Amino acid sequence: MIEYTAEVTGSRTLREGVVHLVVIGGSDAGISAALRARECDPSAAVTLIVADTFPNFSICGLPFFHSGEVPDWHSLAHRTIPEIEAQGINLLLDHTATVIDATAKRVRVITPAGQSREIAYDRLVVGTGSYPVMPPIAGLDVPGVFTLHTMGSTFALEDFLVTRKPQSAIVIGAGYIGTEMADALTLRGLRVTLVGRNAAVLPTIDPVLGHLLEAELARRGVTVVTGQEISAIVATGTDLLTVTGAKGFAHTAELVLVVTGVRPTTDLAVAAGATIGQGSAIQVNQRMGTGVPDIFAAGDCAETFHRLLGRPLYLPLGTTSHKQGRVAGENAVGGDRAFAGVVSTQVVKVFDLAAARTGLLHHEAEAAGFVPVTVETIADDHKRYYPGAVPLHLRVTGDRHSGQLLGAQIVGHWKAEVAKRIDVFAAALYAGMTVEAISDLDLSYTPPLGSPWDAVQMATQAWSRAI
Amino acid sequence: MIEYTAEVTGSRTLREGVVHLVVIGGSDAGISAALRARECDPSAAVTLIVADTFPNFSICGLPFFHSGEVPDWHSLAHRTIPEIEAQGINLLLDHTATVIDATAKRVRVITPAGQSREIAYDRLVVGTGSYPVMPPIAGLDVPGVFTLHTMGSTFALEDFLVTRKPQSAIVIGAGYIGTEMADALTLRGLRVTLVGRNAAVLPTIDPVLGHLLEAELARRGVTVVTGQEISAIVATGTDLLTVTGAKGFAHTAELVLVVTGVRPTTDLAVAAGATIGQGSAIQVNQRMGTGVPDIFAAGDCAETFHRLLGRPLYLPLGTTSHKQGRVAGENAVGGDRAFAGVVSTQVVKVFDLAAARTGLLHHEAEAAGFVPVTVETIADDHKRYYPGAVPLHLRVTGDRHSGQLLGAQIVGHWKAEVAKRIDVFAAALYAGMTVEAISDLDLSYTPPLGSPWDAVQMATQAWSRAI
Repeated sequence: MIEYTAEVTGSRTLREGVVHLVVIGGSDAGISAALRARECDPSAAVTLIVADTFPNFSICGLPFFHSGEVPDWHSLAHRTIPEIEAQGINLLLDHTATVIDATAKRVRVITPAGQSREIAYDRLVVGTGSYPVMPPIAGLDVPGVFTLHTMGSTFALEDFLVTRKPQSAIVIGAGYIGTEMADALTLRGLRVTLVGRNAAVLPTIDPVLGHLLEAELARRGVTVVTGQEISAIVATGTDLLTVTGAKGFAHTAELVLVVTGVRPTTDLAVAAGATIGQGSAIQVNQRMGTGVPDIFAAGDCAETFHRLLGRPLYLPLGTTSHKQGRVAGENAVGGDRAFAGVVSTQVVKVFDLAAARTGLLHHEAEAAGFVPVTVETIADDHKRYYPGAVPLHLRVTGDRHSGQLLGAQIVGHWKAEVAKRIDVFAAALYAGMTVEAISDLDLSYTPPLGSPWDAVQMATQAWSRAI
Repeated sequence: MIEYTAEVTGSRTLREGVVHLVVIGGSDAGISAALRARECDPSAAVTLIVADTFPNFSICGLPFFHSGEVPDWHSLAHRTIPEIEAQGINLLLDHTATVIDATAKRVRVITPAGQSREIAYDRLVVGTGSYPVMPPIAGLDVPGVFTLHTMGSTFALEDFLVTRKPQSAIVIGAGYIGTEMADALTLRGLRVTLVGRNAAVLPTIDPVLGHLLEAELARRGVTVVTGQEISAIVATGTDLLTVTGAKGFAHTAELVLVVTGVRPTTDLAVAAGATIGQGSAIQVNQRMGTGVPDIFAAGDCAETFHRLLGRPLYLPLGTTSHKQGRVAGENAVGGDRAFAGVVSTQVVKVFDLAAARTGLLHHEAEAAGFVPVTVETIADDHKRYYPGAVPLHLRVTGDRHSGQLLGAQIVGHWKAEVAKRIDVFAAALYAGMTVEAISDLDLSYTPPLGSPWDAVQMATQAWSRAI
């Protein structure tokens, strides 16, 4: 084994009293933890174990590479390798962590040369991320079937797109990545069929809003199939794949993409003694501690505290990974920061629409014991007399008894400030405001960009009138 | 005199026990009060006294009419006259209120026919608005010199633009209306010179950001003159006006627009016993009461409670007029609502830039007894790899000791969600958050519309690093 020494750090020799932080995982949570640790304690020695050679890549950006909007995948890096190293972080690329010895405080890794080595740590942050759900569909291993989660998977898909030039694709899974990829492959020139199992696409918003996205997808030529379970994918003829499912569904295309969500990657942490919590993710406290001494977890591998529910759940998102990683990194070098929790804020752009939500949907609020009332409003994004005004569809959910704001959803043109309007709701949720109090917010106004009562306030006032 | 009877209300005869609310002023505050009163008490009889025939017009929209972006001035009406009347509001157009008799609870008006009449009220909302400041400049009455505040003033200016077809203009005053009108008249084809007395245009933001607006104005052909006091306007030759001022300034154009702010219109209320408060405006409590029994005031004629300062000031804005009017209208029919106060949120679009601020500027915070630290950050509006990313200039002000967020300013492309990002800060200010806590906000992210840490959070993190 090797200690954490000059052998690992290159020219740097560890000094006495220096914290050795080891981070497993080079995506959002891991990088955030490493950067924050160095920011809080510039003397800390930080080693980042990365399973591939693509640390700090924007996985959320993959659809825009395949669409052609981002011509060069290199630009998907939030930071380049030299930029990361310039922050004093020791990168171990193509190193796979295989065992955490929590007693000896060592991580075993397989080096690019295939050798097994051990790295000692004082504190460890586990940011092992997630892996794609493989639904119970026969034929997922048939050539021409892809998923999308890592740079490796994106290279495989892109290679197929470039060399085989498929003209048609079936996307199985109509969540964020599915709808984005239906958009992307259409821009790329393919005929796309999008298949989802729920009553509407994007089940993270209400079906009535999901239907607006379906109309936009259809307008741009995507065939949308909802409420459809898929059971098998079979190669049929040269370069063709047939996807079959319940109710006699059968559809043929040259490419199939399976994007049906993710599960947390927890085996290393569990073997080291970490407890499994919500959604099979690593249980963490608000300091992102796992309960195993000196081992923190953050990002897609860990559960997430929800401010409105007052309890953890599994909700893997890039924003959360950054926040949790930052908290874990700070605490790993002696800080004492609590992760403030999320309110389920999410946004996706599909063709010309953006769909955003924050807080709880009606049924989620009900399940959590609230007495929700949800009211939908259509309001212009800015004064109608100024050119370019477009309608926004807003749904506000509040508690009938307390008046507490519980959630909001907005769908509208992606240039109509949908995302930042949901952020106003998100800030209000963070602060525990009532629906009524949203009218008190001193929001900005100029006719090209809003109304004296912003659409956000028109929606909350409609809610108040309705109850 | 006439009582509030069928003579006034047309076919409606007052019932016993019905509240008679009279509102003086048909702009934002007055209309909001009238509408809210009817919403809270559908039995309330509401009479709105309007000095012209243009109730509920969007005065903030006037520049966009003159620019040609809004072809028909009729569309500037937030609501048409039939729409207002459909809410059960009795409109008295072209009626000028001349006296409030607070003892007899009557308002004297001059009718369109020139007759004096009296209208009885149970409750009165004064929404008399403001009038343009006439700075100490000789020659303000010279033909070709205009101001911009009412529909009447906009018709006068438009008539001059249409019939005289001026090719050049000097705009005196470089605040919101001045910069918007420099934009508008340029779009209209005029050569524009914009003259301000401060070190930079738009003194409601820091000069370093004002300079960005100056560069944008210059890029679009506007001659920007700052730090310039003007002393006189004289007619020189046929259809020419020469504007002169300190330091030998002399500039000639065919049209001069004087837009140097407003003062509250308070004479009616003061004569009725109301007290003058901040900025010579009507003093009001948080219920918008004036202290004179049953008389409320709202909008540009009244002072405004500032949440961060914890005291009133004079800050006339359309958004505030709507909020104050709503509170006054609700309380006038028996409600008990407090005006929550403002945090100075404002935004303006000038050509391709938007400039927004909320909270206190550095020097305002200092004057209020805080120990402010202000940090500027430049951050992309969305991930740079996705097409169209533009830099935002953000300035965050926080208190060094408490860490409290005190204010924020953003300048950037007007389509880069500047306004709604300032609204996130505005919501945080409302909730009394610290700068540090902004990083905890669960804001939305998708690469075309943001970053995992939104620009808002990059700016607050930079502030935290700086202290």
